[in-house]
Amino acid sequence: MNSRFIFSWKTLQRTWSDWRGSDGLPGISPDLPEEERDTVTKLLNECVAARHGAVTARQHAAGIGELYLTLNATGRRHFLEILADQFAVDQDQVREVSHRLAHSDDDETFRQQVLELREALISPRQQLLQQFNALPQGVKFLIDMRAELLGFLHDSPNLKRLDYDLQQLLATWFDVGFLRVKQLDWQSPAALLEKLMAYEAVHAISSWRDMRHRLEWDRQCYAFFHPVLPGEPLIFIEVALVKGLASSIQSLLDDQREDIDPQQADTAIFYSISNAQTGLKGISFGPFLIKKVVDSLSHSLPNLKTFSTLSPIPGFRRWLEKRLADNGSAHDKDSFATVLAEAAQLLDVEPTLAHVIDDPRWLENSEVCDLLKEPLLTLCARYLHERRERDSAPLDPVARFHLGNGARIEQLNWLGDVSSKGMRESCGLMINYLYALDDIKDNIEAYSQEKQIAAAPRIRKLISEHEPKLGPLSGLRKWGNRKGKGSA
Amino acid sequence: MNSRFIFSWKTLQRTWSDWRGSDGLPGISPDLPEEERDTVTKLLNECVAARHGAVTARQHAAGIGELYLTLNATGRRHFLEILADQFAVDQDQVREVSHRLAHSDDDETFRQQVLELREALISPRQQLLQQFNALPQGVKFLIDMRAELLGFLHDSPNLKRLDYDLQQLLATWFDVGFLRVKQLDWQSPAALLEKLMAYEAVHAISSWRDMRHRLEWDRQCYAFFHPVLPGEPLIFIEVALVKGLASSIQSLLDDQREDIDPQQADTAIFYSISNAQTGLKGISFGPFLIKKVVDSLSHSLPNLKTFSTLSPIPGFRRWLEKRLADNGSAHDKDSFATVLAEAAQLLDVEPTLAHVIDDPRWLENSEVCDLLKEPLLTLCARYLHERRERDSAPLDPVARFHLGNGARIEQLNWLGDVSSKGMRESCGLMINYLYALDDIKDNIEAYSQEKQIAAAPRIRKLISEHEPKLGPLSGLRKWGNRKGKGSA
Amino acid sequence: MNSRFIFSWKTLQRTWSDWRGSDGLPGISPDLPEEERDTVTKLLNECVAARHGAVTARQHAAGIGELYLTLNATGRRHFLEILADQFAVDQDQVREVSHRLAHSDDDETFRQQVLELREALISPRQQLLQQFNALPQGVKFLIDMRAELLGFLHDSPNLKRLDYDLQQLLATWFDVGFLRVKQLDWQSPAALLEKLMAYEAVHAISSWRDMRHRLEWDRQCYAFFHPVLPGEPLIFIEVALVKGLASSIQSLLDDQREDIDPQQADTAIFYSISNAQTGLKGISFGPFLIKKVVDSLSHSLPNLKTFSTLSPIPGFRRWLEKRLADNGSAHDKDSFATVLAEAAQLLDVEPTLAHVIDDPRWLENSEVCDLLKEPLLTLCARYLHERRERDSAPLDPVARFHLGNGARIEQLNWLGDVSSKGMRESCGLMINYLYALDDIKDNIEAYSQEKQIAAAPRIRKLISEHEPKLGPLSGLRKWGNRKGKGSA
Amino acid sequence: MNSRFIFSWKTLQRTWSDWRGSDGLPGISPDLPEEERDTVTKLLNECVAARHGAVTARQHAAGIGELYLTLNATGRRHFLEILADQFAVDQDQVREVSHRLAHSDDDETFRQQVLELREALISPRQQLLQQFNALPQGVKFLIDMRAELLGFLHDSPNLKRLDYDLQQLLATWFDVGFLRVKQLDWQSPAALLEKLMAYEAVHAISSWRDMRHRLEWDRQCYAFFHPVLPGEPLIFIEVALVKGLASSIQSLLDDQREDIDPQQADTAIFYSISNAQTGLKGISFGPFLIKKVVDSLSHSLPNLKTFSTLSPIPGFRRWLEKRLADNGSAHDKDSFATVLAEAAQLLDVEPTLAHVIDDPRWLENSEVCDLLKEPLLTLCARYLHERRERDSAPLDPVARFHLGNGARIEQLNWLGDVSSKGMRESCGLMINYLYALDDIKDNIEAYSQEKQIAAAPRIRKLISEHEPKLGPLSGLRKWGNRKGKGSA
Repeated sequence: MNSRFIFSWKTLQRTWSDWRGSDGLPGISPDLPEEERDTVTKLLNECVAARHGAVTARQHAAGIGELYLTLNATGRRHFLEILADQFAVDQDQVREVSHRLAHSDDDETFRQQVLELREALISPRQQLLQQFNALPQGVKFLIDMRAELLGFLHDSPNLKRLDYDLQQLLATWFDVGFLRVKQLDWQSPAALLEKLMAYEAVHAISSWRDMRHRLEWDRQCYAFFHPVLPGEPLIFIEVALVKGLASSIQSLLDDQREDIDPQQADTAIFYSISNAQTGLKGISFGPFLIKKVVDSLSHSLPNLKTFSTLSPIPGFRRWLEKRLADNGSAHDKDSFATVLAEAAQLLDVEPTLAHVIDDPRWLENSEVCDLLKEPLLTLCARYLHERRERDSAPLDPVARFHLGNGARIEQLNWLGDVSSKGMRESCGLMINYLYALDDIKDNIEAYSQEKQIAAAPRIRKLISEHEPKLGPLSGLRKWGNRKGKGSA
Repeated sequence: MNSRFIFSWKTLQRTWSDWRGSDGLPGISPDLPEEERDTVTKLLNECVAARHGAVTARQHAAGIGELYLTLNATGRRHFLEILADQFAVDQDQVREVSHRLAHSDDDETFRQQVLELREALISPRQQLLQQFNALPQGVKFLIDMRAELLGFLHDSPNLKRLDYDLQQLLATWFDVGFLRVKQLDWQSPAALLEKLMAYEAVHAISSWRDMRHRLEWDRQCYAFFHPVLPGEPLIFIEVALVKGLASSIQSLLDDQREDIDPQQADTAIFYSISNAQTGLKGISFGPFLIKKVVDSLSHSLPNLKTFSTLSPIPGFRRWLEKRLADNGSAHDKDSFATVLAEAAQLLDVEPTLAHVIDDPRWLENSEVCDLLKEPLLTLCARYLHERRERDSAPLDPVARFHLGNGARIEQLNWLGDVSSKGMRESCGLMINYLYALDDIKDNIEAYSQEKQIAAAPRIRKLISEHEPKLGPLSGLRKWGNRKGKGSA
Repeated sequence: MNSRFIFSWKTLQRTWSDWRGSDGLPGISPDLPEEERDTVTKLLNECVAARHGAVTARQHAAGIGELYLTLNATGRRHFLEILADQFAVDQDQVREVSHRLAHSDDDETFRQQVLELREALISPRQQLLQQFNALPQGVKFLIDMRAELLGFLHDSPNLKRLDYDLQQLLATWFDVGFLRVKQLDWQSPAALLEKLMAYEAVHAISSWRDMRHRLEWDRQCYAFFHPVLPGEPLIFIEVALVKGLASSIQSLLDDQREDIDPQQADTAIFYSISNAQTGLKGISFGPFLIKKVVDSLSHSLPNLKTFSTLSPIPGFRRWLEKRLADNGSAHDKDSFATVLAEAAQLLDVEPTLAHVIDDPRWLENSEVCDLLKEPLLTLCARYLHERRERDSAPLDPVARFHLGNGARIEQLNWLGDVSSKGMRESCGLMINYLYALDDIKDNIEAYSQEKQIAAAPRIRKLISEHEPKLGPLSGLRKWGNRKGKGSA
Repeated sequence: MNSRFIFSWKTLQRTWSDWRGSDGLPGISPDLPEEERDTVTKLLNECVAARHGAVTARQHAAGIGELYLTLNATGRRHFLEILADQFAVDQDQVREVSHRLAHSDDDETFRQQVLELREALISPRQQLLQQFNALPQGVKFLIDMRAELLGFLHDSPNLKRLDYDLQQLLATWFDVGFLRVKQLDWQSPAALLEKLMAYEAVHAISSWRDMRHRLEWDRQCYAFFHPVLPGEPLIFIEVALVKGLASSIQSLLDDQREDIDPQQADTAIFYSISNAQTGLKGISFGPFLIKKVVDSLSHSLPNLKTFSTLSPIPGFRRWLEKRLADNGSAHDKDSFATVLAEAAQLLDVEPTLAHVIDDPRWLENSEVCDLLKEPLLTLCARYLHERRERDSAPLDPVARFHLGNGARIEQLNWLGDVSSKGMRESCGLMINYLYALDDIKDNIEAYSQEKQIAAAPRIRKLISEHEPKLGPLSGLRKWGNRKGKGSA
């Protein structure tokens, strides 16, 4: 029914049916019609009442889980709504204790009431959900149930309350202190690699052959695991060992490339980071994984000097199109609109970004390439420095992630990703974020306190020279006549 | 300095010193004099301020842990007092939010304020302590720190506040759902068996030879482990496979006994359950371990029909002496005082329990044995049914544990433990609590709801016949003339 | 260069280059021309001279292995010929010792000379090859080298001498006593499953999806491993858990079939056994693997009552065509030739086996099917009882294998394998060999002593009724009018 | 009955009884009287007749093993004699084939007869013994049976023939290429460490505390294992990580010593190598283990610069006493006899080596120490250069071992082992053999070809200066007046 569940629902149902013991399960229709919801509420109440960890509690939980698995999407939504609406904290009790606490006089009373209040603030549904960790695959069940819940949120905003409790619970359990990083390779279980193939979110793994290719001796893959889910990666990162900064994802993943001896490599390129569990949304693992992987690589391959990403710039083209729309009037001779019009003329298409960039011919037209290269690189550098209004963090989500972890913007790569996705998102540009071991700590501090963006001198120069003088889309032609290497 | 720590403090300090990184550690005197406490407070504040799980947070935590390890007992107490006194929740903030919440009007506001209040109720020290789980051996450090804290509680009751937070944190992490049961045997790591020898709390393991003896093929040992502490048993249980109920611990542990083929055994005797971690006091594992072990044994040895303990009765003699002191006047001919006096006369000692029972000669004097046997067995049955005032649970702590888990009182064993500890605690008596698989669930319910004590018919009869008719220490002679087997 | 080698030759060369140490490797051309062969002979002699297991011996071996890997097919053949021609036992010495031994008088002298002779009979190349077991992947190297050698045998029959020594050496190392059986499943390393896919010899595994399908919960796979080659299966067997004897391989492998709970299955079908290492040809593992798998399954799934194969009959059609060619005159009305002619007429093709059987239409023509069924089943039963001249063992190699292991012929399956391979080899028939635990020992004895073929009564009856009365290809029509189930 | 067996004989008998299956075992008396030996012969013949690896072969072997275990020492000797006397190669057949081979004309016939002869030279008992490797613990059984056999050799020299076959078989199986080196530490199974304690042959491990002490972080222990005997060390080596060459075993093993950080150590001292399996006598593992351990240590602790032993000199005192007896007349003033007489006078004992050296007072008498030191060191250097007549290898067995492995004599240590064993064997001297990575290969070559002894310049000088000029026990006083450090 739901391919997300680690076992087929049949297997999980069977297992839980064994755990449930001899108590019968009430007959419930798959879409959980209104008249049957009281039965479910009763079952849930019984589970809440049982002592955590006790045999009976686990039996109740197994029954509830089994029941959930028999429901269809409609039924599951109703089920979750019951949890959201009827198993919240007791308002009267919380108000009463809060009132007393707000007016407590002495320290000792205050402390007693803090304990009392903490107790009162644990909702019945939190107690109930906690029971599932004692079931086989119970934690994975909660993760997948939350993934389903997130899908229902749009239609049932009330479920937000349940989601909050569920996220809290999972965040406690998936504390990074408990996670273990493991290297995956071609000796890893097939079942595990199959999951990587399904979960990879940045550059799709097209086949087992492609999977194997990403685990060759000059490629590495690391994932975080939680001890209770030994077969489920939480997040994973793919690394290429190369000489010099990699500037093109297509070259990096080319299966005809010459492989190199890892001991000879001087650079580790992190070219893909994917969260594997939708149901753990909002719980952050990425920074810790990067740190652990850098540590592990520095130790095992002492010749590595440079740790860098090769990353997408997912919002660049959308930003640029918006700017063009807002700023159509800036038709001086150096403006991007003029440049774009020239390019369109050479290709004999309409003068819009879409008509030019989505036309594969432009890549083979060196005149168009020369025309567009510097303006696009400069605009991209500007985009990366563009801030959100509410917290002045960078607009680009990938930039926020890496800058927040202490990396700096190192290099922009012209035609770094010529796939249709690359064109659609960033006009073919890619970026390297550099993790310089000695600067990470300072970068984190400067970013977290003043949202200061660390960047290589060349990038900073690009910005500093032009930003003050020009409107966002004009004056770009200055660099147009500088031929040269494919990156900034 | 403190043998409790899993590594020598030297090793742990070295490890953490590596983790701390290049930041210097301030020079602090071992007993943490008043003038240096501000420095410590400052360090603690910096750690609280760091983002959980971040590299800097771990560096701060490592530094703090390292510092703690350099302190002596006095210094550690001061350190813990700083945490207890200065890192509590912000009273003003909590009062303010509580006040708002108590007067919130609509549901939506209420829910927002619940979230806000939950946040406010997390104390800074909870945040700080949580950082330790990302350090190597950090969780074990907190467990051992709490063990030390418990030792300071008598002199520094304020530490109770810190203890509460610490226990909460550990209880979350050591949720039984995350624990794994493992069987230990002579193939287990020597380091692990060495710990069993140190932690065994019921019948001391006298030597490696004795340890080995308890892991022979007709003996089994199971322990609970947490994934982050793979080498540290949390609780362990020792089992003997025998034919028929075992009634004497000395026979059971006799290393000259004939061993039997486990496949032939019909009874599993749980003769020792020990908590291994003082610092996890108040977090219960025992019932779940017994359940898992019974499951595992039933599965692997299908011929086992009976699962029972052979347990001490730790409070019996103390209870009996108090009764004798309170009730000295009951000198009718069947009273225990009279019986005791006769026994004393035969041994030519003063007529007190201490003079008779602590005199090893009585065990070899069959006349004295005959005289004391039935009265003591009957009194013990009564003791086991005696209740605490506040919750009407049984007085005996071991009885509370097993009855609460669904066992029943099966048999009282005359001269079941003739060691000096056995004499000192229970006049040599031992007891079997029986785990009858079909009754466990009902027993748990009956006990938890009405504190009903399950007992074998013979034990119930013993009580029902005599309790109504007689004062607690009289009328006991009636059974004195019944010769017979050594148990009731 | 040679995909057979477990590592790419590049990786293995690199590893061995490290092991070789600082001694240079002479420059040798890939096809090892005549003028460079003395250099190789010299290297080989140095390796023979080194003490087995010593560091220098391993260095020499690593150098020789590295050199072999740089050769092309021609060069390798020359290399092996050098070993075959120049590193045999010393004929003069052997003759001399033999002569002395043949004429030795007393027991003591005889025994001394036996030792001397044994020593003399160890060829230098045996000593040399033995050095390889101390190299990483050295044993696998020898296996793969032998696989190449087997390919050269046709052109260089002299290599047979080397092959004999190599086989002896490998047979000693791969003694079944040292092998371990392991169950493989979807949790097994991808690298291992990839090898199964490559090595499967009976029913090709078409894709990773197909592989996964064969490892579902009602499918099992077992392989033998040697401790020094943990990642290399030597032989493996695929098992399907079903209800009742499976009669069609297509149904068995259908990925739309309903899976069943293994606990409910009553029959284990061994549907594929493949040797994985060409280089271990002539060293038998199959019988021991079947025995171990039957033991393991009986233990873990006590409801299994029947253990049987579903096997091909690889030589049936070839045998039948030869019989037809030899026996074309037997055109009485019940002869197979007449039957075949009728079938051909119905299909409007020429009256040959090839024209009828290789025409896919016949399968959908029920008239043709009815016509052919019984005659083919009967002829197949006869084929299975046909003997080789030299040792009176059955003609069919699969029959020899299973009958020699104590199985009996249980059932012939009409249209058991309708793949083109099935048609080409056995006119679509398959067979079940049954392993009846109680009869295996007696069957082995009867077969090994008198080549007695065990068969189910129905099969025996089929033969006994008709064999004496009729020529091999006549009188078959008698059963043609019996409609019925698809097997005999 | 025999503590050598890994399982109690009871357990092993039970296991094998299961494997034997339903066939009864004949009743045999424990001392295997003459009239019952035919029964045993018959059983052995049946086992020989069975096909290797087949189920029936294993059943026979299990029965025979079980029977052996029921025998007492006398019975076992008789059992082994049956194997030695009646299961040898067939003399007539061997003579006949040898004769033919000696007179074969052409190459092809010769090669055929070589194969035939090899076959004929495999004795029935070799075939029989080989069956045991398919039994659980069967290989260990053969090892322990050989250990018993070695004990019987003195009384039954005929058993030598059986021993030869058994050693051949074990040597094939325990080829060093198949062995794995593993590091043992306090996390190793208690059962394994218990064996180390039992097997340690150089410096006895007195208790579990002592065992643990030898596994501290600046101590290491490595052992060789065979894959089929995962719990049985074959040979093990103990290493101490120190600064500078260790010169005293008592200081090295002192449990009050200051431990050092292994990363700071510059020297690895191999202070004990013990063979663990008597039954593998004559099969050499030591050199390979040392090589592997040096490799492993160099890799994991790059600061280690020096790899050296601290070894006993087991034959020095015996040699010296013989020299004194032979050479009593050399009573010039520099002769050792004169020196010894002076020392005896100071201690007021008779002037014999025994009276002086075995008197513990001499160690505290600095005058005696000064007197004896240089003469003894010089004599010891001479002893180490003394050769055996037959092969001119060094007289000292430990010297032969290490020099043959490529080490050199580095330093002689005055009072290096002051235990009574040290005094009894070598007058308290110890020696360091140095493994200098760059010289090992040359040393091995020089030693194996010319028995050249590698030694540090100081040692060489000691010898070269004095050997030519002086008789073995005279002229030693020259060094007597040189005070100085405790080693040469």
